[in-house]
Amino acid sequence: MAVYTQVSAEALARFLARFDVGDLVSAKGIAEGVENSNYLVETTRDRFILTLYERRVSAGDLPYFLSLLDHLAAQGLPVPPAIADANGRAIHQVEGRPACLIRFLTGVSVSNPTSAQALAAGDALGRMHAALADFPGQRDNNMGQPHWQPLYERCGTSLDDIAPGLHRDLGVAIADLAAIWPHHLPRTTIHADLFPDNVLMLGERITGLIDFYFACTDIRLYDLAVMHAAWSFDATGTGHDAAVGDALVAGYARHFPLSKEDRSAFPGLAVGACIRFTLSRAWDWLNTPADALVTRKDPLAFWRRVRMYDPALASRLPTLA
Amino acid sequence: MAVYTQVSAEALARFLARFDVGDLVSAKGIAEGVENSNYLVETTRDRFILTLYERRVSAGDLPYFLSLLDHLAAQGLPVPPAIADANGRAIHQVEGRPACLIRFLTGVSVSNPTSAQALAAGDALGRMHAALADFPGQRDNNMGQPHWQPLYERCGTSLDDIAPGLHRDLGVAIADLAAIWPHHLPRTTIHADLFPDNVLMLGERITGLIDFYFACTDIRLYDLAVMHAAWSFDATGTGHDAAVGDALVAGYARHFPLSKEDRSAFPGLAVGACIRFTLSRAWDWLNTPADALVTRKDPLAFWRRVRMYDPALASRLPTLA
Repeated sequence: MAVYTQVSAEALARFLARFDVGDLVSAKGIAEGVENSNYLVETTRDRFILTLYERRVSAGDLPYFLSLLDHLAAQGLPVPPAIADANGRAIHQVEGRPACLIRFLTGVSVSNPTSAQALAAGDALGRMHAALADFPGQRDNNMGQPHWQPLYERCGTSLDDIAPGLHRDLGVAIADLAAIWPHHLPRTTIHADLFPDNVLMLGERITGLIDFYFACTDIRLYDLAVMHAAWSFDATGTGHDAAVGDALVAGYARHFPLSKEDRSAFPGLAVGACIRFTLSRAWDWLNTPADALVTRKDPLAFWRRVRMYDPALASRLPTLA
Repeated sequence: MAVYTQVSAEALARFLARFDVGDLVSAKGIAEGVENSNYLVETTRDRFILTLYERRVSAGDLPYFLSLLDHLAAQGLPVPPAIADANGRAIHQVEGRPACLIRFLTGVSVSNPTSAQALAAGDALGRMHAALADFPGQRDNNMGQPHWQPLYERCGTSLDDIAPGLHRDLGVAIADLAAIWPHHLPRTTIHADLFPDNVLMLGERITGLIDFYFACTDIRLYDLAVMHAAWSFDATGTGHDAAVGDALVAGYARHFPLSKEDRSAFPGLAVGACIRFTLSRAWDWLNTPADALVTRKDPLAFWRRVRMYDPALASRLPTLA
């Protein structure tokens, strides 16, 4: 959410000269996405996002992410393809960082989606999964269910600094989920982070799906569970908008109707999504200085959502009782 | 250089509805300018910068800054005018902050200006001063010469944490300058911060003068001295590009030829500019946590420039010897 690496106008003009995209007209560092540096770049011909990949995105994963963008763009999804240079290369080095030039998409990210917007977004997720049926790439979900226990252990008892009792309760929830995790459900390539931030809209029309840097191979329905948890609650995780959640599912079901088994597994998958974001936010919280300019996201906002998805589990957890 | 205040797409759309500027199409938080939050906003009709003024800009000064932008835009300078709403108001409140919508200008800020670019920039400064001859606004330069001693005293002996001996040497330089400061030279409205960052260019053409939030009434020639110190050195303040400095002066002299008195006062004004930026950077350095995401600018980069402008003074200062 900041510009970590400065790129001078001169260096940017030299970089653009590798491509057939026109001459530099404007460049602004933008505060967007996971921990990358992004510039909104305008040339005499078009607009682009230049992304420099900082520590969170591994350079080795870039070919996977870019082939995913290309695949989805080729299938007509509103996904920004990476631009290849005169030699056909899309992955470059800029100021010592791996970097890509990606087409700019219009649209804004809503903060409080309406049901109509959620219906469109659920529909877009379904279309995306349908388009990915023949995508050959594979990538482990390094924030997936098998990784929660190790990340939990790395956070350790400091979790109690966030909320007294959180260390015990999160351990209980992770163990509970491990016992019921629906490993048998269909797997595919998922976005894994399709928050409202990562969907561009104009009114009720989807104009862009962005920020695929958590994309991976995992349970297909888990992607909808992540979206449900991200879209249908207020910022504190206490108020739930059932109409928004239902609209997401209805939009998605146009492409992948939910089976009886899907429906029974869904609350568990959603609790899993809550644990995943509670854990990553807790880790960031415990490892980000309070006075840093990056806004630390409240880890408890996702933890509180567990109450809605599994009241029986929540009743056994003092931090949620 | 970061987005301090988040503005949701919904709030932004409501804000834009006050104006006759079309509907929201895109919005990106941008990393630009002094300590304000800036968004690059695109509507169905045009592009704008939305600025939310954070602590460094006083709300009471906004009418002065906006009338200055309007005056310069009306005179044909490449300055972005603030947009008035349906009721003629240009100063608004957004998320509890004073805010203005300003026209977007294309162009990029160069990092290593050429002589031709410096000539154009010096010319633009001269045109700006000529256009300001009948501007009635007045504002004290709160970073001007009379304010250096108090700011120096607030920094105190911590200055020696930046470089051993800096506290003594800076005190000597401030006292020296106070004795020779050319108070009698003509005064006007000056930009006071026209670094390469604040000039937008396309090739050798000036497309924008921006970030007027240090503008004030002070010695006219001091503005050129600030520019000279900002434009004609490398980032460390040791390498001086005389051709770039000469080009700035030559471009400026097309509008305001330098008198003999101007020429003899110029090195002192430039040393003053070096002191001003050494002091403000030292203050920020001493008051910004080392791990904050804002890049702290090296206070010594401006201090080292004193060597070029006044070798005799520098020879008496151990930190510069």
